[in-house]
Amino acid sequence: MATIKDIADRLGISVSTVSKGLNGASDISESLRQTVLDTAVELGYTTKQMRGKVQRKLCIFVENMEYETADQFGYDIILGFRQSAYRDNFDVSVIPLTPQFQATEKYDTYMLKNGYVGAFLLGCALQDEWMEQFRSTAIPTVLLDNYIKKNPSAGYIGTDSFEGIDNAIVYLMNLGHKRIGLINGSRNSMISDQRRQAYIDSMTAHGLSFSEDTMPYGYFVPEAAKPHVDKLLSLGITAILCGNDLIAAGVIAECERLGVRIPTDVSVIGFDDIPISAKLNPPLTTIRQDRIALGKCGLYALNSLINHVCISRTLLRPELIVRGSAGPAPD
Amino acid sequence: MATIKDIADRLGISVSTVSKGLNGASDISESLRQTVLDTAVELGYTTKQMRGKVQRKLCIFVENMEYETADQFGYDIILGFRQSAYRDNFDVSVIPLTPQFQATEKYDTYMLKNGYVGAFLLGCALQDEWMEQFRSTAIPTVLLDNYIKKNPSAGYIGTDSFEGIDNAIVYLMNLGHKRIGLINGSRNSMISDQRRQAYIDSMTAHGLSFSEDTMPYGYFVPEAAKPHVDKLLSLGITAILCGNDLIAAGVIAECERLGVRIPTDVSVIGFDDIPISAKLNPPLTTIRQDRIALGKCGLYALNSLINHVCISRTLLRPELIVRGSAGPAPD
Repeated sequence: MATIKDIADRLGISVSTVSKGLNGASDISESLRQTVLDTAVELGYTTKQMRGKVQRKLCIFVENMEYETADQFGYDIILGFRQSAYRDNFDVSVIPLTPQFQATEKYDTYMLKNGYVGAFLLGCALQDEWMEQFRSTAIPTVLLDNYIKKNPSAGYIGTDSFEGIDNAIVYLMNLGHKRIGLINGSRNSMISDQRRQAYIDSMTAHGLSFSEDTMPYGYFVPEAAKPHVDKLLSLGITAILCGNDLIAAGVIAECERLGVRIPTDVSVIGFDDIPISAKLNPPLTTIRQDRIALGKCGLYALNSLINHVCISRTLLRPELIVRGSAGPAPD
Repeated sequence: MATIKDIADRLGISVSTVSKGLNGASDISESLRQTVLDTAVELGYTTKQMRGKVQRKLCIFVENMEYETADQFGYDIILGFRQSAYRDNFDVSVIPLTPQFQATEKYDTYMLKNGYVGAFLLGCALQDEWMEQFRSTAIPTVLLDNYIKKNPSAGYIGTDSFEGIDNAIVYLMNLGHKRIGLINGSRNSMISDQRRQAYIDSMTAHGLSFSEDTMPYGYFVPEAAKPHVDKLLSLGITAILCGNDLIAAGVIAECERLGVRIPTDVSVIGFDDIPISAKLNPPLTTIRQDRIALGKCGLYALNSLINHVCISRTLLRPELIVRGSAGPAPD
């Protein structure tokens, strides 16, 4: 378990300042106090006073997503959620979710018997058994990247894929690219379908040509890129958009293997801006999702649903982070 | 100026309980304390302690919308915004907006010279001069029912028109209606365009026929209904959706003048659920917008933008409120 010193070390401040932050002393600034509390939540430090508060229970279900360490996609989303939950006096459990789990437990039953007043779901696939149950649940439920039609108890939170993909395509067009491909994430994922549609819409709006072959589905891992890179290059593609940064890392590795230079021969743009992006060679130009903010907005939406304010969807702006993996189109 | 007794009378509680709520005494419940504070905000009551807090300044610009009294559309939106703003320590000014005002003052300049850190805009028209300026402003700006593309400083908040219109059409179909029309709000309004598209999408999805003639534009006032009712009826329309409740009130008045019975001869469904809806004859079936929640979410989105969390859009669920103005289709 973390100590006050761990918090002090992380923030580079003294133990007595951390102590003041935790105890609500008036002689430190509100923003520093909040940072101390946020870090306490991240490191799992609790005081007797914190534990003594009356808390309602929430849970986060995670499927198809890595989240255990700070370099993984889900980590900051869960952290942002927990930081906001702490302020609103909720206790949060993180529960790994599998198809087997969903086959064994009904969603509503599981929530009720465990006393959870709401849930945040990360990474559900369209064919998941619980997805059908979310259509009629009366339990406040917020889903990242999944939209449940017409159920006022279910909210959707995500980043605007349409604006993100269009920003990237406009950026590439300004660099002279016309033949742009998309190696998408997995099928059976709402977010893959959304990014595919975003690609189609943007390419159409800008008068660029595309086909089934220029927008293959893959999976959200580096290995998924391998079979597609050579094929896209043979179609004359000069820039490859990727369903996430891991796929982009796979594209970079495959290009290296093929002796294809980035960005001289082909440009590559990722999606997410996970920590690894900046460390790739070349550093990855990518469409950033603010994952701490996604978590915080997820908690806000869930707390709203609990209070009968029926937020249907909240979308965040994506931001194009320009690094070295996209450059002028080859002649 | 309101007194403690005014708050007590409004809530039907004692003056001493109000006093406890205002002073944060520990022997009343948190929810009652919040209700007391919300009512103090609504009635404009302030204590010395409230006035003494350091406050940042926000403003609400209102155009093309009534908001002065509780029966008007904008009242609850502004109230919800102000109630949340109070909790987050913001001071709020409400400023009527006109085309003349926009021609005289640049948005950014006006905000800066008056020390406003953010604005909430209600009722802007698409051709408004400021709409162009919102595309590039760096000042946190949230718009009700208007979406600004690709500016991370601008957020959009509203109710999901697509789900609202589809709910109403499905409801009418279950009552046997096939010929459904829409008397829309004014042109040059994003929300009119959205509801028109929602009508087109839903009618298409359900295999129902429509044409330009079945979805005329009007204006968001009762008088706008008059020229369209007879025309729609002559096309065999048996159910009329309306761009808002005021138009629906106009449809009811015109039907009475023409001797057309509601809902026996024609069904009418409004949009908004303003207080007048329940008092019409027959009481209006309508698509409800939770206006207090719109205001609260507006403040949340604005406060997020101020803190560099770029909320792009937040949509609330509409709710179909069933009263007496829609019934089975005539044989």
